Amino acid sequence: MIGIGVIGLGYWGPNLLRNVAESPGASLRTMCDVRADRLALAAARYPGVKATRDPGEVINDPSIAAVAIATPVSMHFELAMAALAAGKHVLVEKPLAPSSEQGRRLIDEADRRGLVLMVDHTFVYTGAVRKIGALLASGELGDLYYYDSVRVNLGLFQHDVNVIWDLAVHDLSIVDYVLPARPRAVSATGVSHVAGGHENIAYLTLFYDNNLIGHIHVNWLAPVKIRRTLFGGSQKMIVYDDLEPSEKIKVYDKGITLNNNPERVYQMLVGYRAGDMWAPQLDAAEALRTEIGHFVDCVERGTPPMTDGHSGLRVVRLVEAACASMAARGRLIELDAPAASC
Amino acid sequence: MIGIGVIGLGYWGPNLLRNVAESPGASLRTMCDVRADRLALAAARYPGVKATRDPGEVINDPSIAAVAIATPVSMHFELAMAALAAGKHVLVEKPLAPSSEQGRRLIDEADRRGLVLMVDHTFVYTGAVRKIGALLASGELGDLYYYDSVRVNLGLFQHDVNVIWDLAVHDLSIVDYVLPARPRAVSATGVSHVAGGHENIAYLTLFYDNNLIGHIHVNWLAPVKIRRTLFGGSQKMIVYDDLEPSEKIKVYDKGITLNNNPERVYQMLVGYRAGDMWAPQLDAAEALRTEIGHFVDCVERGTPPMTDGHSGLRVVRLVEAACASMAARGRLIELDAPAASC
Amino acid sequence: MIGIGVIGLGYWGPNLLRNVAESPGASLRTMCDVRADRLALAAARYPGVKATRDPGEVINDPSIAAVAIATPVSMHFELAMAALAAGKHVLVEKPLAPSSEQGRRLIDEADRRGLVLMVDHTFVYTGAVRKIGALLASGELGDLYYYDSVRVNLGLFQHDVNVIWDLAVHDLSIVDYVLPARPRAVSATGVSHVAGGHENIAYLTLFYDNNLIGHIHVNWLAPVKIRRTLFGGSQKMIVYDDLEPSEKIKVYDKGITLNNNPERVYQMLVGYRAGDMWAPQLDAAEALRTEIGHFVDCVERGTPPMTDGHSGLRVVRLVEAACASMAARGRLIELDAPAASC
Amino acid sequence: MIGIGVIGLGYWGPNLLRNVAESPGASLRTMCDVRADRLALAAARYPGVKATRDPGEVINDPSIAAVAIATPVSMHFELAMAALAAGKHVLVEKPLAPSSEQGRRLIDEADRRGLVLMVDHTFVYTGAVRKIGALLASGELGDLYYYDSVRVNLGLFQHDVNVIWDLAVHDLSIVDYVLPARPRAVSATGVSHVAGGHENIAYLTLFYDNNLIGHIHVNWLAPVKIRRTLFGGSQKMIVYDDLEPSEKIKVYDKGITLNNNPERVYQMLVGYRAGDMWAPQLDAAEALRTEIGHFVDCVERGTPPMTDGHSGLRVVRLVEAACASMAARGRLIELDAPAASC
Repeated sequence: MIGIGVIGLGYWGPNLLRNVAESPGASLRTMCDVRADRLALAAARYPGVKATRDPGEVINDPSIAAVAIATPVSMHFELAMAALAAGKHVLVEKPLAPSSEQGRRLIDEADRRGLVLMVDHTFVYTGAVRKIGALLASGELGDLYYYDSVRVNLGLFQHDVNVIWDLAVHDLSIVDYVLPARPRAVSATGVSHVAGGHENIAYLTLFYDNNLIGHIHVNWLAPVKIRRTLFGGSQKMIVYDDLEPSEKIKVYDKGITLNNNPERVYQMLVGYRAGDMWAPQLDAAEALRTEIGHFVDCVERGTPPMTDGHSGLRVVRLVEAACASMAARGRLIELDAPAASC
Repeated sequence: MIGIGVIGLGYWGPNLLRNVAESPGASLRTMCDVRADRLALAAARYPGVKATRDPGEVINDPSIAAVAIATPVSMHFELAMAALAAGKHVLVEKPLAPSSEQGRRLIDEADRRGLVLMVDHTFVYTGAVRKIGALLASGELGDLYYYDSVRVNLGLFQHDVNVIWDLAVHDLSIVDYVLPARPRAVSATGVSHVAGGHENIAYLTLFYDNNLIGHIHVNWLAPVKIRRTLFGGSQKMIVYDDLEPSEKIKVYDKGITLNNNPERVYQMLVGYRAGDMWAPQLDAAEALRTEIGHFVDCVERGTPPMTDGHSGLRVVRLVEAACASMAARGRLIELDAPAASC
Repeated sequence: MIGIGVIGLGYWGPNLLRNVAESPGASLRTMCDVRADRLALAAARYPGVKATRDPGEVINDPSIAAVAIATPVSMHFELAMAALAAGKHVLVEKPLAPSSEQGRRLIDEADRRGLVLMVDHTFVYTGAVRKIGALLASGELGDLYYYDSVRVNLGLFQHDVNVIWDLAVHDLSIVDYVLPARPRAVSATGVSHVAGGHENIAYLTLFYDNNLIGHIHVNWLAPVKIRRTLFGGSQKMIVYDDLEPSEKIKVYDKGITLNNNPERVYQMLVGYRAGDMWAPQLDAAEALRTEIGHFVDCVERGTPPMTDGHSGLRVVRLVEAACASMAARGRLIELDAPAASC
Repeated sequence: MIGIGVIGLGYWGPNLLRNVAESPGASLRTMCDVRADRLALAAARYPGVKATRDPGEVINDPSIAAVAIATPVSMHFELAMAALAAGKHVLVEKPLAPSSEQGRRLIDEADRRGLVLMVDHTFVYTGAVRKIGALLASGELGDLYYYDSVRVNLGLFQHDVNVIWDLAVHDLSIVDYVLPARPRAVSATGVSHVAGGHENIAYLTLFYDNNLIGHIHVNWLAPVKIRRTLFGGSQKMIVYDDLEPSEKIKVYDKGITLNNNPERVYQMLVGYRAGDMWAPQLDAAEALRTEIGHFVDCVERGTPPMTDGHSGLRVVRLVEAACASMAARGRLIELDAPAASC
């Protein structure tokens, strides 16, 4: 039984509370938020659990083996580092840290101490994303040509980060999980419509080897909610619509066939295939439940999580590069080859 | 009664034939295609109309006052210029010409001769796009923040042009019509998945004054068909879904309100509004029918068409800039201020 | 502060617990279920609330002013009657009772004792249904011609009741609320696909005065979930789709106009109107929250609830008539004029 | 080459003209309508084809081997009988005849003369309906439990027939083709909202052996267009949505499993299965093109068509029974066992 403390009880924290409380291998020990009203709400729901406004009381509690952090991004590094330094395993809400340099230091600290550092890339633990990962790994899509993701709605304008940090992190973490390939360069554009505010619309193009191209559209100011990602392969294509209640993944037996006959090169180069569509049954378990189970398991066995610090760091690096490109209105940012240890 | 000849009977030409034949003010005189099989098909449908494989028989026919051209793009300039030189009014399928330099020369020739030069920006003549134009002109959207258009499906790979020339031209012509503002710069990315072929996926970001941003996504390799454009304003937003059978335009009374109270600047900056949605009844007339009627009217009255050579040229210039940016993987291309005469 | 006890903690009971616990005017005193496991689950969530397997401990608790009953239908009458007899106000899950005779007795008992008897017709308290009620009351639909409701999915086969008692009760209670008219006769058909089981598919036609016709389709064995009701009027029509996340109500300015010119009687009798569509913004509050607030208010003020015993009884009578008709494969069952006191 | 004449050039006739004209095995000889304007329109499109206002000129033309009839229903019998009497093969638009007695006589006349009598049950020739037929025939749905069809929109009010004759005929003809079972009884309800007019809303329940139940909802007065049929089996279920552009047929691996363990009879009787969904690729050929080809083939080979007079007669009998039931507000009408020759 792993004793867990949760710091940060805003939008996401209560979901952590509930899933930690109901996890067979975990024991919810302490809840923490600097805001008295958020704390009171949680205390009313979990009267038997210790509540405190001081994160130190979580981090230094010897009955606590692991800390889950769901504070604003700006606090991620400081709290995670303190928890690691106190010998606690750490689960941090996405993104891992406000900068890749800080993310790097968290990884090093966890490595040095032999602690689990896991980032809460929640979508990776959904049945839909795991199915996409399995489909891509099986090779049945053929060569992957592109992915294209749209994540827009009339969303909460964040005060400390722009829409890339808030929303594109989801897409980047999904792609980091389902694709073995890593992007080589990024070009991004975007704009802020609130004076002095962060960008609320952004477009990212990611360039990979072998003509694979990725694109992500995030927007806090859309009248309708869209959560749709296309994966286009030479053999099959996937449409992932997260708003569909039951058929979130559709696999299309559609594509083109290229004519390699050199004599016909000036005639028809491309043929079209259209076949059946198939929507596989998906695991409907709540992602956060699966994720907390996986975290507990990693802590108990000392094994690295699927969404470890390195995946968290790769995502933060992409966000930094995209923000730099966006500031320069689409200027291409090459991504350095990752160091061996990453 | 305007005598009209149609050159080019491939995919789009038969639609021109039908609408010219049924237009009260027009008389279909001659049909022309170099391909005998296309010509035979048309002749079977319109047995009383002269059919020829020689464009010269259209251009030089004194009973013909106007020529409609629906050939491959590479022939647009040559044929349009010959027709103008022969004193004919000209309707050219989009895009106006394969280069802005040639587009410029067509405009000059038509101006010098006092002839109508119209480009077939078909969507401008739909009830949906005219309604969007009216809504934007009325000011009820408030300040326009962005537009975002997606035009993808498993489409015919073109052999002579890339997907921007083929599909994005539709979006650029729609925006040219509904918006008074002109873009200042463009950044585009894209890729070809056919060796030696033209780009089949492309993303365009268009920068305007006053933080207005536009984005266009075109793709010949998508498993599903999407035709959707968002227009986001400070007061209202529009979703235009061209695949909806009857409710193509939805107007959302949604948006954000900015808090200008300087004392509260560090607190909540943004408020949210969500109100009714409204789908106006649209004119359901076939766009090409409306367009041919407008062309005939312009020829008879000597008035400039809504989609004249200048709008055609603006679109071609944007396409050229986008292609240049795409070749440089997103490099920003500034758009020169248009010359006074444009 | 009204002390409330909840009896029955199966599917719906926990929702009652949560809404009673969070209601400002109510105090959750006791939770009751004969099943130890259900009781333990509730106790874990509300450790400070008394839990018992004996309904008598709820009904006879002097600190409790009102009892909410969410047991199987077969227990509704016995428990509600005992609670009324003990001087408690009562909220019963739908349907009010397993028979109209028992429903009648509950009403009489509540009347005699001056207690509130309310039936949990939850949909009546949704923003959508209240908006439909307001639209119909305003007269803007013109003469109402028909309503048509479909409520199907792969649903839980109930063991004690058929699909009319389980699902059609929702539609009947909605219609009872939004329409002033009462049906005059009913014809129903249906079938059971489980040997010895209750009907799992049913179709109800309800006949009203003035050519108003209603129809309800309920089905536990459908591969897709559908929750859609049409209201067709002479001036406007409503589509209510409860599965739409935000636009649950759409009002269509569509209809027909009748030609009363006697000379043209053999020609065109009917004209068609198609205008705008409008989706009003709806109150998004949880229905059960609104409902519990209303119940508390009625108890405090001694006023009759919107969904009182009489509405509950009208629904039960319709269900009985529909079941009788279904057993006779569609035979028309005339509904007696309600007695004056009803 | 079969010489064909077409009588009736209203809504459907022009589609017949086009498909006959383009059919390889047929030759369009004569077009006929009593209305001069309809005839002129057709003549403009097919200048080389003889046009006449006198059906006799079609029926008695020795160069014509087959007559296609697309007049109002009231003329079907008279014209078809005259054509058969003149030795012509006949294709009649649905329904076969205004009464089963007349339908019977047409069958007898065609049989006696050895002529092809085919009814234009167009949907039977779509890729979607043929796929449903193949799926049902393969047995992979298991036991069929029910079908449920909705065919509603703001449709043209017909002057000579009610909505069952106009719309339900489509559903009845589809079911007649895809199901081997024949209904034993029917109960129908409906109403007219136009004084003195035919019913514009109707509901049909069809009872079969083995607890199979069918239901059809037709409505000329709905604000939205719905064309959806469910087929529910013990193993799989089909959703057929004719308005879907490409995925008209979805096959759901969903259902219930019955627990036959007598010891557990009072516990859980029913288990639930939810698996993949599959949308097969369909033949996208125009139904009428396939149908005309089939008609020509039957005439040439002297073989009976898929939609012969007997299927037309079965549909007319069902319509008559449904109308009788509707007039008696749902009274059950038993369907006589068909005579051996039918």
